[in-house]
Formats: sequence, structure tokens, C-alpha cells
Amino acid sequence: MARSDGRADDELRDISITRGFQQHPAGSVLVSFGQTTVLCAASVTEGVPRWRQGSGLGWLTAEYAMLPSATHTRSDRESVKGRVGGRTHEISRLVGRALRAAIDLRALGENTIQLDCDVLQADGGTRTAAITGAYVALADAVTWLRAHKRLADPQPLSCSIAAVSVGVVDGRVRLDLPYEEDSRAEVDMNVVATDTGTLVEVQGTGEGATYTRATLDAMLDSALAGCAHLTELQNAALAEPYPGELP
Amino acid sequence: MARSDGRADDELRDISITRGFQQHPAGSVLVSFGQTTVLCAASVTEGVPRWRQGSGLGWLTAEYAMLPSATHTRSDRESVKGRVGGRTHEISRLVGRALRAAIDLRALGENTIQLDCDVLQADGGTRTAAITGAYVALADAVTWLRAHKRLADPQPLSCSIAAVSVGVVDGRVRLDLPYEEDSRAEVDMNVVATDTGTLVEVQGTGEGATYTRATLDAMLDSALAGCAHLTELQNAALAEPYPGELP
Amino acid sequence: MARSDGRADDELRDISITRGFQQHPAGSVLVSFGQTTVLCAASVTEGVPRWRQGSGLGWLTAEYAMLPSATHTRSDRESVKGRVGGRTHEISRLVGRALRAAIDLRALGENTIQLDCDVLQADGGTRTAAITGAYVALADAVTWLRAHKRLADPQPLSCSIAAVSVGVVDGRVRLDLPYEEDSRAEVDMNVVATDTGTLVEVQGTGEGATYTRATLDAMLDSALAGCAHLTELQNAALAEPYPGELP
Amino acid sequence: MARSDGRADDELRDISITRGFQQHPAGSVLVSFGQTTVLCAASVTEGVPRWRQGSGLGWLTAEYAMLPSATHTRSDRESVKGRVGGRTHEISRLVGRALRAAIDLRALGENTIQLDCDVLQADGGTRTAAITGAYVALADAVTWLRAHKRLADPQPLSCSIAAVSVGVVDGRVRLDLPYEEDSRAEVDMNVVATDTGTLVEVQGTGEGATYTRATLDAMLDSALAGCAHLTELQNAALAEPYPGELP
Amino acid sequence: MARSDGRADDELRDISITRGFQQHPAGSVLVSFGQTTVLCAASVTEGVPRWRQGSGLGWLTAEYAMLPSATHTRSDRESVKGRVGGRTHEISRLVGRALRAAIDLRALGENTIQLDCDVLQADGGTRTAAITGAYVALADAVTWLRAHKRLADPQPLSCSIAAVSVGVVDGRVRLDLPYEEDSRAEVDMNVVATDTGTLVEVQGTGEGATYTRATLDAMLDSALAGCAHLTELQNAALAEPYPGELP
Amino acid sequence: MARSDGRADDELRDISITRGFQQHPAGSVLVSFGQTTVLCAASVTEGVPRWRQGSGLGWLTAEYAMLPSATHTRSDRESVKGRVGGRTHEISRLVGRALRAAIDLRALGENTIQLDCDVLQADGGTRTAAITGAYVALADAVTWLRAHKRLADPQPLSCSIAAVSVGVVDGRVRLDLPYEEDSRAEVDMNVVATDTGTLVEVQGTGEGATYTRATLDAMLDSALAGCAHLTELQNAALAEPYPGELP
Repeated sequence: MARSDGRADDELRDISITRGFQQHPAGSVLVSFGQTTVLCAASVTEGVPRWRQGSGLGWLTAEYAMLPSATHTRSDRESVKGRVGGRTHEISRLVGRALRAAIDLRALGENTIQLDCDVLQADGGTRTAAITGAYVALADAVTWLRAHKRLADPQPLSCSIAAVSVGVVDGRVRLDLPYEEDSRAEVDMNVVATDTGTLVEVQGTGEGATYTRATLDAMLDSALAGCAHLTELQNAALAEPYPGELP
Repeated sequence: MARSDGRADDELRDISITRGFQQHPAGSVLVSFGQTTVLCAASVTEGVPRWRQGSGLGWLTAEYAMLPSATHTRSDRESVKGRVGGRTHEISRLVGRALRAAIDLRALGENTIQLDCDVLQADGGTRTAAITGAYVALADAVTWLRAHKRLADPQPLSCSIAAVSVGVVDGRVRLDLPYEEDSRAEVDMNVVATDTGTLVEVQGTGEGATYTRATLDAMLDSALAGCAHLTELQNAALAEPYPGELP
Repeated sequence: MARSDGRADDELRDISITRGFQQHPAGSVLVSFGQTTVLCAASVTEGVPRWRQGSGLGWLTAEYAMLPSATHTRSDRESVKGRVGGRTHEISRLVGRALRAAIDLRALGENTIQLDCDVLQADGGTRTAAITGAYVALADAVTWLRAHKRLADPQPLSCSIAAVSVGVVDGRVRLDLPYEEDSRAEVDMNVVATDTGTLVEVQGTGEGATYTRATLDAMLDSALAGCAHLTELQNAALAEPYPGELP
Repeated sequence: MARSDGRADDELRDISITRGFQQHPAGSVLVSFGQTTVLCAASVTEGVPRWRQGSGLGWLTAEYAMLPSATHTRSDRESVKGRVGGRTHEISRLVGRALRAAIDLRALGENTIQLDCDVLQADGGTRTAAITGAYVALADAVTWLRAHKRLADPQPLSCSIAAVSVGVVDGRVRLDLPYEEDSRAEVDMNVVATDTGTLVEVQGTGEGATYTRATLDAMLDSALAGCAHLTELQNAALAEPYPGELP
Repeated sequence: MARSDGRADDELRDISITRGFQQHPAGSVLVSFGQTTVLCAASVTEGVPRWRQGSGLGWLTAEYAMLPSATHTRSDRESVKGRVGGRTHEISRLVGRALRAAIDLRALGENTIQLDCDVLQADGGTRTAAITGAYVALADAVTWLRAHKRLADPQPLSCSIAAVSVGVVDGRVRLDLPYEEDSRAEVDMNVVATDTGTLVEVQGTGEGATYTRATLDAMLDSALAGCAHLTELQNAALAEPYPGELP
Repeated sequence: MARSDGRADDELRDISITRGFQQHPAGSVLVSFGQTTVLCAASVTEGVPRWRQGSGLGWLTAEYAMLPSATHTRSDRESVKGRVGGRTHEISRLVGRALRAAIDLRALGENTIQLDCDVLQADGGTRTAAITGAYVALADAVTWLRAHKRLADPQPLSCSIAAVSVGVVDGRVRLDLPYEEDSRAEVDMNVVATDTGTLVEVQGTGEGATYTRATLDAMLDSALAGCAHLTELQNAALAEPYPGELP
């Protein structure tokens, strides 16, 4: 059974990575995985939260959110509801954890990097697009900090980070699921990996079903190949000169 | 004393209006006034809030918000703070009121149009850009409703709406203030007007200063000319065919 | 068509201003515009908010609220709902902005004046009554500060402030609208002015209608005459000795 | 040791009860116990909360609150803090419970009476003044319901209710404590009683001290005499014709 | 008419007191009054809240809560509702006040004791069980502080504290009401007393009924006898060696 | 390097499972993994949430929380903070998802099962203990529903569910980490599995480190063996007759 968008099972959607989308943050990247579009900003502030002051260590944290108009049917605004939902909390924590794996907080010095991943359009895989784009924004923010001589050590990034979803749909292991596949997947997994192929985070969930270890292995094979491809695309984007004037 | 961006006192910033920015809402417009960029979406739902059911009248409401990364220094997320701030509330109410002046709610039938104006980048005049863009999104949503035969009357829009800021800076009346001028303006006024030059809303505030009626008149002259120009740009944008596939 | 209370179109309702209504605040004024009654208190505290410390400048802020029993049909308590509504926020901000126009914050020294405007009975024009009463409470609080030698300069008030509503009802421009007129006004405007007739704030809104510049001019004429009359009544009230013992 | 205001130990402060203070609620009473002033409104709505519909029983509930300017030092507004404090909750529940003892909810029919007790000025004993005033507002609301033929039975009030504080100050049992005595009382008791001298609620608290049963008995003697006197004053107030026009 | 569990009117339910239920807090007691079970923990922290720093005085505060699964029908979680209910607030304040009567805060030194009373199973009388158990946890926490030489004076406890409910059910004064009796009691009273029989708190409420002074006296007789018995059981529990390893 | 509690690397802590801990819920299990103790209750209500009515499907949801006194240092109460934290949300969602994998919601019929997992004492692995205990409570609730003839089909449970943590500590793969190991683990994984060894959920996180696929495999081996052992213990517990009277 073919995929509705004609892709091979192990093929990524069209990926685009646009740096310098906003003027103010030190890094600002608009990333698209097919119709999923996320604006990833990396804002730098001097100093760290109070509980960390004087430690010599920096801090990196992330917040994920969705515009109400991003989804097929409009979703209510969390600010108006007065509370951040469980899913939002969970993804924000995942993004922060994933990106902290890439950075040596001692080398960062007592600076804070705040990653904001705001989904402008949602079509499945928003959290993995967010992580993939946030890494590029983070790399630009680190370049900015280096240019402003605010790093404790000039190379705080120890690896690069990419993420992709994979799942079992129509009985087949498929990479980078759009909403149409994601919503009926039997198993759903998100994999965050480094440029050397080591793992940062694996989250695999049976959706009203369970899965064997053999399926887990097949999903990991596909996801790691996808992450390797995303790493190439991130590197290509970062090899370009910074567009427009620097923030 | 010249303006820092070289404009004449009565000149608008570069305006751009991009329709069809998002796939899901019935209308979705990315509007820029210089470096200020606002994403305006018009989402349609069948039915009206409970207090309005059975009245035969439709409803239109608006929410305004800012991405944390939109401002020079990152601002905290209102969903995380757990409450919508006073300024956000005030602008949301203004946008809704302004656009309701353009639409005959009886002709709309029992449909609800929700306008979401999310500021992607802020450089002064975000509320007037939001209103100007929201009108275009609203016009597209009305076209969509008409195409789906869901209107009680085929022409619910009675006029078009545009808005612009004007103020007294360096002792001179200036149109469409960027943040650099807005933050030191002695008087600050927002004007919402129709395509026939009648007024929908006038809000003029002395900022630690008061102003004479003569100044009020000069500001109104400038703002009404600015709105007339914005109306032309809106009409030009709406004269183009809808980009990409219809939602 | 005559007004239901028999007034001329440019006539204020019966105005009463009672100073010293409460014992504890430095200024406490019960103001009535017809059946609208607002308790305006000016509380003084030494020091300023943290973001202002060491600046040598004082601070003035305002909060507006309504008793649940003030309105025709009881309204829910915002403390019980757990959030301040948009209208309340908007008026609180307006009252603070209006009164800050009257005071030189450097002359005030590092003191904070908190204005609390609590509506005991609502019959239209509560925000303009609140501003008009709050000015008198502020004047008493400044007298108190002067008597306690806590001002940086003995004359921090640069002007007096009054406010009134005006609107188009039954096709006629009318001053100081009670609820019965306000609820069916085609245009509604609030004007805040000084004792020299300069403007502090103008907010004019078409309610499901738009209005011409000629109408705007006629409304301003009426409102400025109304403010001039209110200024006389404020001066008369302040010319009396302080009732009872000083706080 | 004499009381600072010269009263005898078993003497109430000056009590005043003003009916018809507000226009809109069915009952509205301004009550003062010395410098403590509480505005007690009884608002009537047709119908009962959902969990009670179809039972044939009415409902009565109460909310107590304090204006920020009521206290010696301004207190923060609970709506702004976004939550009702423990003390406010506790007193609201007490007032509702106390007044429900006076009314036969079956005779009330499916109507809801909402009591709002807003403290305009606080000088000790606000909860007992609130209960005493709320009874008078309730009596007026019942009269209003009877006049509008909305009662299931014409006599829903089975008794009248009054309340007073009593405490041990300077080693002596004293009635109706002002703030100056209340803040240093060793024991503090609030007593709610009916016109026949039976008890509705007794709450006696040692404040950093404990007390003997003999002290409890002496406090009850004093409080019951005080409540009997308050009942006379309530009856006298209710014997007057309703001031102004009926709501 | 006999009680449904066969007890005499003046008889307590089976009481059990288990010390050392949790490892981490300085005192941790599982207390049962029949089927009512409350986990009472006393956690010690060095230092006091900011408003108390430098006073030389310690602080003691309490929080009461119920597990959702504790009640016959599951109750909603207050953390999920986003606010603490009025009943919870009221009981938390009562528990804190009751236990502060037992401790000399100067002798405690600048330490804070936080009492947490979490109801694991509810069958009437949860607040009185909480107070009775909390006293034992407090005594263990004081022993712990003494052993760690952190007290300003070695004997901060001036008395012991116990509490019990009493009410009028089926026309008879009955002690220690289970839910089945509590829910239909005409009068309900909670009494907190010391080991010398003096009173800390008396709260007696007519539930849709009023009561005479004679009834109040009979309820007090029964409650004070009950408290004396509870004091014996507390002493017996505290006479045992501390179970397991000390925290 | 040996484990501080002397266990082999692939050995579980002492596990205890006590059914019938509370009277009211249909299932109530106190589960301990070493010093970690969680009270798991399964409450049954007739009917389903509104969005599910008429579907013929049941619903199962879960809430996880921690008593303030459960942790080494007391943690603040989420009800008092007024919001549920991200970690709590995330675990609640995990528990619900895990247990929904065991139950056929059509066979359940239009009933709702609410699982409450309240941590009484925390020493690492609270979420896996919660899932393991919740399964037993769920099994008892299903028995209760069957006995009351409220199931659409008598066998709604399709498998049993157990969960355990595994991690890399001191360079070694270790099973069932206590807090002392968990807090310094380089990699941390939670595995939820069925009695046939298929996977429900795998969540593996590098904590400031990344890990190879070989490590992932070794962790899965250990976790699946641990889950198999837990399944035996669950079966043994469920083979006993229900203690005490049925709810």
C-alpha cells in the first residue's frame, strides 16, 4: 500500500531550513518538514537563573507552543485557558533535554539560551521538526556569543542534534509521518540522535497496540538513517553566510 | 529633524500583504509594516456561542498575541505566566471591535469567525498592522463562506477597514511610528477608518504630556491619508487570485 | 426627542463629590454622576516598585473594579473567577495613565500612590466618574504628603484632570450618558482633559456604526465644555476644609 | 483598665443600619459597628444552581470581600492575585451558613439569594457586622419576593440572625472588639444567635493561649446579651418604611 | 436508638497511631479514627519565612488535603482544578492554629515546622484526626530537633493537643461521628483541647437548625472527655521507642 | 563497583503489593519497590466524558501526584501553587497510555475508570511502580465491574502490564534504580511491557550524555527480564482472595 504523498517508506518529506527569519533573537530559524512549519528562536541573556548563579555553568531551556491557527481545526489559546497543557509541557521538556545534550554548559559560561519553538503550521512531526530547527538556531546563537566574546570556551557545541518520527502504519515501518499517517499509526516513535549516530532520546509508544522488539529495531534503523540525512541538511544550511544583517 | 529611516513625516513604511500564508484557516495573511510582521488568520466555525444561539446573527471575535521572540528583548509567554496581560486584552478587544464594524452579522448567518493576530516580529504599530491584515483575512474567509454557500446574505461586508498609528515625535506629527519613535513619542494615536474615510475608532493618548485640539486635528489628517493608502494596498492584494489551493 | 431624565443634550447629571469617605487612605472620595457612584481612594506607600528604585522618581498606578451588586443584574466577582477581565484591565490602565498626566513623578519623590476606584453603583460613565473622583483623592493625598514633608518638591501636580463621556444617541450628540443611553449609543467617546482644556486621552468608538469627522468635532466640543464644568466642581470641593480628622 | 474608646466591657460600639443603600439589589444595607462599615447586598435570581434544579428548594449563598482601601495599610486585591485567600473563603462560608439557618429553603421556592458583603472600612468585627447587616438585606429581599409573588410560602424566615465578637483583652471579657483590641486579644470568639437566644454558630479561638470553660461561659453570656441588643436594632430598622423607590 | 456501629454515645471509635510511617520527614504519623485514616508529616527546615527573619522566633504552619480516592465517590484533585477549595483552606488554617497553641515559637528558634495532613481515607472527623495525629508528628519532630541541637530552648512544647468531633444525631449528643452520622447531624461541633483540659478551639455549627446553651454544654462535656482519652493514647504511642531508623 | 544496596545489576528491589488498601475505590493497591511506595486506586464511574457519549466505548485515564512529605526535602503542593507541573503532567499521561494498552474499551462499555497514583514515599522509579501497581488495581476494578454485571464483554483485559526503570550507572547497565543511582545515571530508561514480552512504551534519555545502540539493547534485555519478574509477582498477588470486604 503506497503512501498518500507518494514517498518511499524510508523517505523524508521536503525539508527547508531558513536562517535569520527574525531580527531580534541571536538565532532564528524557520524549518519545514513538508507542511509542518516551526519557527525556532534562540534568545541569549546574560546571567543564569538564581539557583545556578556563581556555578560558572550556563543554562539552556526551551518552550514549545502552537499558534491556534496552526491546526486543521482551530485550537484554543493556552494563555486564554490560563494553563499550559500536558502535551505542551511534555514537548517543551523534550526539546530542552535534547538540545542540552549538544552543549557543554561550562563552556557556555554564565549565559542563558532560551529556545522558543512556535508551530506556525502543524501536519505531524512538530516536535521533531522543532528539535531539528532549534539545533540550527542554537548554532547561530553560539556563533553570536563567540563573536561577542561572551563564551567561557569558544567551542561549547560537542555534537549536532537532529530528530525524526517513525511509526508503523498500514503494517509497514514508515519515516517522518504526516498527520494523516500519524493519526492512524499503530506504533509511534520519536528518535533524537547526534551526528555520530549515538542516541539522545528514544520514545516509542504503542497506540492502542503493543509492538515487538523486532519492530523496535526496524524503526530505529529507519530513524537513524533519517537523522543522518537531516544532519547533512543542517550542515548545508549552516555553511551558508548569515542572511541579512546580524542581530 | 529627519526620521531615522529617511521617510517623510506623512509616509507609511514599506507595506507587504501575503495571502494564503497558512493552509488550514479560511483566511491567512502575513502583513508587514516595515519590520513589524503579524500573522492574521480568520478561522470559521459553524454555529455561534451559546448566548447567541437561535438569534440568526453570526459572531466575530479576535485574539492578539506576541511570540516571545518577537520583541527586542525576549518577553515571557503569557500561557506560562497563566494569565493574559492587560495590554493583550485591550488590543484583542480593539481588533474585534474594529472588524465587527465591517461586517453585517445578520448577513453572516449563524457562523463564527475567529481572528487570530500573532505578532511574529514587533517594531511598533503591531495593533494597527494586525487590524489592517485581519481585514484581508476576513475578506478571504467571507469569500470562502460564500463559495461554501454558508452565508445568510452573499454580501456581509459593508466596508473595508484599515488602521495606522500617528504621533508627535520631536515636535512633529509623524505617521506609522516604528518602535524607536513610538517609545519616545509625546502623543500617540491609533486611528481605525473605513474605505469611505469615516471613523471606527480613535484612541489618542498623551504620554506624560497633554496635547491641544489643533494637534489632534493634524494627527487625524495624517492618519486618514495613511488609511486611504492602506485601503488601496488591501484592494490590490485582494484583486490577485488566491495563491495555492483553497483551504 | 428628549432625554429620559429631562436633561439638555449638553448637560451633566447631578454631580456630588464627598471627601474623606474612608479613614485610612490619604485621600478617599465618594463621587456620584447621577446614579453612578464610585469610591476613589489614594493610598500612599513609601518607596517604589523594584524596577524603579534609586531613580528618584515616584510611581502612580490605578486599579478599577466593580462590586458584584453594583450592576442591574448581579455580576460575578473577578476574585472568584480567578482572573481580571479585559474590560477591567483596560479601564485600570486608562485611569492610571490619565492621572499620571497630572503629576510630576520627580517632584513626588520615591513614593507610590495607588489609586483604587471601586464602583458601588453603576449607571453608565463609571470610568469617567472614576477619573474625576480619583483626581480629587490624588490632590488630598498630595496635601497629606506635603504635610508629612515627604515630597521631593512641594508642587507635584501640574494640572487638574477631569473626564466625561459623550455619544451619539437618537442621532444627537449627548453629554454624560447614563446606562439607558450608553447601551444604545451609535458612537461612544470618553474624553480626559486638563483644567486648561488640553487633551490627555480621547477614545471614540463606533458601536456597530462608523462616524464622520464632523461628528467627532461636535462630540469634542460637548465633552470639553463638560470637563470644564467638572473642573469647577472639583475646585469647589477641594476648597472646603478636610472633613473629620486627617488620616 | 479602661477600654480605649471608653465603653463598658459589655457595651456595643455605635451601630447604624441604613437600608436601600444601592438601587439594584432587592436588599442593600450599609451597616456600621463603630468605624467598621460593610455594604451587604441581597440579590435575587430566579432558579437555582443545576445540582438543585427540580428539588423545589431555593438556595442562599454568600461572598465576603474587602476593598483594598478598607484596611489601615492597603491590602492587595484578590482578583489581581488571581485567588481568593483562606480567610476570605472561611468568612464567606460562615456568612452563608449563618443566614441559611434563618430561612426555610422550601418556602423560598426555586429562587437563589446571593448575599454580597463588601467591607468598605475595617476596624475589627467585620464578619459579625456582615452577618448582622446581611440579615436585614435578606429580610428586604424576602419582602421583595413576597411583593412579586415569587415565594412558595409567604413566610420563609423562621427567625432573625445577629452576630457579635467577644474576647479576652487585658484579662477581661469584652464585647465587640475594635481592631486595636482584637489584634492583642488572648481569646477571640464569634457568636451567631437567633432572636430567641438559641445558637447558630460559636467559634472560639485561643490566640497563642488556651482558655478555660469558665471563660467560655463568660464570653457566651456577654455575646448573647450583645446579640439580643443587635436584634432590637435590626427590628427598629426594619420597622421603618423602605427608603426611596423600591428596586 | 443505637449507633450503627454499636458504640455508646460517649465512646470513641477504634484509634490507632503509627509513628515513623515515612522515612524522610522528622515526624510521620499514620492516625486512624475508625475508617478515617490521615497521614500526618512534620517536616523541618532551617530558617523562617522572610517576614519573620531576624525575629528569633520560629514558625509552624499546616496544610490539609484529601486524596481523590479517599472519599466514597472520587473527588476531583485540587491541583488539577488549579485552586484550593474553601473547606481545604479552612481546615488547613485550623490545624496550624491548633498546633501553634502547643509550641513556644521562641523556644523553637528560627526553624520552620511544616505539618502536612493528607487524608488517605475519609469517614468523618478527618480534621480532628489530623490535629490529633499532627501533635504526635510534631512531638517527634521536636525530639529530632533537640537531638540535632537546633532548638533555642530544649522544651518548646508547653502542652499536648487533641481534638474530637461531637454532635447531635437522632436527638442525642454523640462523640466522634463517622460520615454516616455526620451527614445527618443537627448540630456539629469540633473541640480542640490540651492535656490539662483547657480549650484551644471550639467550633459549633447548627446545620439547618439552631441549638440551646444546654446542648452546647452537653457537647462540651462529651468532647472534653474524648480529648482526655485521646491524650492518653497519644502519650502511650509516644512512650514507645521510635520505630526503625531515625530520619 | 557494587551497588550501594548490595543487589546484583539485574536484580529488582524488594517488591510488595497490597490489595484492598482503601475501602472506597473498586481497586486500591499499595505497591512498594524498595523504599518507593505508591498508592494506586482505580475508581469506577458509570458513563464516559461528554465527547465520548454514545460511542459504546469506555474510558480510562490516570493522574499521578506526590505527597509533599514523600521526598527527601519537602516539595511544595501543586494545589497551593495553583498549577500542575510539567513532570506530573508527563507521568500522568504515561500511566494512562500504558494502562489503556491493556484494556479493550469496547468491552469495558460506557464506564470510566480513573486511576490515581499517589506517591507516599519516593526513592526512585515512582512512575514504574505506579504503572505496576495500577495494573493490579485495574484488574480488581474489572473484577468488581464484572461482579456488578456492568461490562459489555466479560474479558476486557487483553494482557497484563508491568514497568521498570533501567539505566547506566558507574558505566554498568543496572535495573530498578533507587534515587541514589537515578540521580547520577548517565542514561535512564523506562520500559513498559506486557506479560508476553511485547513493548508498550520505551523512553530512553541520555542525561547530559548520549548512548549507543548496543547500550540500548543491553538496557532492553535487562528491563524485559525485570518486567517478566514483576508480572509473576502481580499474578501471585491477584491469585489471593480479595482482603476484607469488597468495596
